[in-house]
Amino acid sequence: MRAVVFQKKIAFRVQHPEPQPAAGDCLVQVHLAGICGTDLEIVRGYQEFHGVLGHEFVGTVLRGSKSWEGKRVACEINAVCRKCELCLGGLALHCRNRTVMGIKGRDGCFADLVAVPEANLHEVPERLSDEEAVFIEPLAAAFQVIAQCPIEERMSVSVIGPGRLGLLVAQVLATTGCKLTVVGRSGKGMDLCEKAGIQAIHVRDLALERNRDVVVDCTGSPAGLALAMEIIRPRGTIVLKSTYSQAGPLNLAPLVIHEVRVLGSRCGPFGEAINALARGAINVRPLISRTYPIEKALEAFEAAADPENLKVLLKIKPK
Amino acid sequence: MRAVVFQKKIAFRVQHPEPQPAAGDCLVQVHLAGICGTDLEIVRGYQEFHGVLGHEFVGTVLRGSKSWEGKRVACEINAVCRKCELCLGGLALHCRNRTVMGIKGRDGCFADLVAVPEANLHEVPERLSDEEAVFIEPLAAAFQVIAQCPIEERMSVSVIGPGRLGLLVAQVLATTGCKLTVVGRSGKGMDLCEKAGIQAIHVRDLALERNRDVVVDCTGSPAGLALAMEIIRPRGTIVLKSTYSQAGPLNLAPLVIHEVRVLGSRCGPFGEAINALARGAINVRPLISRTYPIEKALEAFEAAADPENLKVLLKIKPK
Repeated sequence: MRAVVFQKKIAFRVQHPEPQPAAGDCLVQVHLAGICGTDLEIVRGYQEFHGVLGHEFVGTVLRGSKSWEGKRVACEINAVCRKCELCLGGLALHCRNRTVMGIKGRDGCFADLVAVPEANLHEVPERLSDEEAVFIEPLAAAFQVIAQCPIEERMSVSVIGPGRLGLLVAQVLATTGCKLTVVGRSGKGMDLCEKAGIQAIHVRDLALERNRDVVVDCTGSPAGLALAMEIIRPRGTIVLKSTYSQAGPLNLAPLVIHEVRVLGSRCGPFGEAINALARGAINVRPLISRTYPIEKALEAFEAAADPENLKVLLKIKPK
Repeated sequence: MRAVVFQKKIAFRVQHPEPQPAAGDCLVQVHLAGICGTDLEIVRGYQEFHGVLGHEFVGTVLRGSKSWEGKRVACEINAVCRKCELCLGGLALHCRNRTVMGIKGRDGCFADLVAVPEANLHEVPERLSDEEAVFIEPLAAAFQVIAQCPIEERMSVSVIGPGRLGLLVAQVLATTGCKLTVVGRSGKGMDLCEKAGIQAIHVRDLALERNRDVVVDCTGSPAGLALAMEIIRPRGTIVLKSTYSQAGPLNLAPLVIHEVRVLGSRCGPFGEAINALARGAINVRPLISRTYPIEKALEAFEAAADPENLKVLLKIKPK
């Protein structure tokens, strides 16, 4: 099968071995997949992953479960053991023995076929196009912000970094009715905020007042947290939403002095994401900057690394 | 009056001007004062403070309030406006306009006399010696850990850094009955833990398993947080208890991946500290490494910076 593989460097292969589904796995044919910041970090050496890349996709179940065959699906990315103390204690997403699609110990979805645990499948409602459904996984991660840190209308909330993830987080936050601002630099993300009625503030125009109840850092850079510490109110909450491979110089004294709470936030509730897309509460179409056929995956990765682009997709299933 | 002053460098002065108490301030004669990690950081340039150093002390009220005159007191260190939105919103300790004794905009207690807002005074019970009462301020800061992060008996909790603050935090945590370990290097702090029946683990013997529910970093160094991230369980809580002036390289990806919560923690409840000392629940005596007369303050600061010493005190009121 065709696959985009990382093994010290990224490569597109025409004859990569097909996945061998384990017990409980379904084999899914991939239609469309999305490149995320984590994929870019992996290619830079983050997590020391090697194998088929990718974890955001929509596809059709080919075999492995009678009840799922032929169904169009989005898939959760953590394959868990259901036996360790974390799984048994209600923290299965943090399973000690988990593999993670395209990130840790498990092949990803930038390929014709991917093996996925049946328990990870979510049916995609008919009304959603593939172009919308491919956003279910990152949108679920965006919903995790309000799952971990409940937002009320009276709250002042800022998102730093209006990139592909930040724009999803901003739209999720906008559904709460809170006082929302997005902080960034010029570019498509800022324009999209304005069009969506979300106030966008350029970093250089930002008053460094410690008055936000919640700040979500979606920059993928240590500078994002440094800025967040400048605008969060005492006892406020900073949500860290993106990982990065480099260690940056950080002075965390402001966290102590102002007794700030920092929440790391990763994968989220697929049900919320599917529901929000299906009822039209989140508009993901404008986030698609480019779509490449899988054969042009290397070009697609370059485009995804260009800050001028937002979401870059890989078209995998031929029409 | 005699005073230990920081103005680009630390100096002991014999004829420093006496404080001029503002409206609402009491004038307090200082008996005994403690040198804390923050004092050492200030002398290294943290916070750009200049003035009389020091914020941990016990003394006697000389004048400023009839009801307080002659009383022996410990004092809260934040002088607040009671008018800003944080004061009015229940976060007075984070007052926008606050000054902080010996740390920010207000002279400290390493002097014969110090001016303190009447509202900041706490009477010291007779049964406490000066040597115990001088620990009320840092012990209150230690109690803030369990005020912000309630600890249950079933929880596994580690304190990193058995120094002057870490040993107070460890004793406070021990009162909860939780499964407590202290992580450090050899030295007095480790010995004191063992004597107090608290399990002490040398860093080199520490199994890097992510299984602690709560980790309190009292190291005063970025390495403390890095180690905390290696032993905290997914969705666990790291409490940052100490500030430091240097920015260290930190990769915070583990916070995101394991959805860890970080809580900055500063000053705490004096009532809890006084009560715990009075009922003998916390033993501070063994933490006193050296006591110097105020005239030898520079020697005392050197001693306090020596990791072999724990709490170093300044004797200010002559017998």
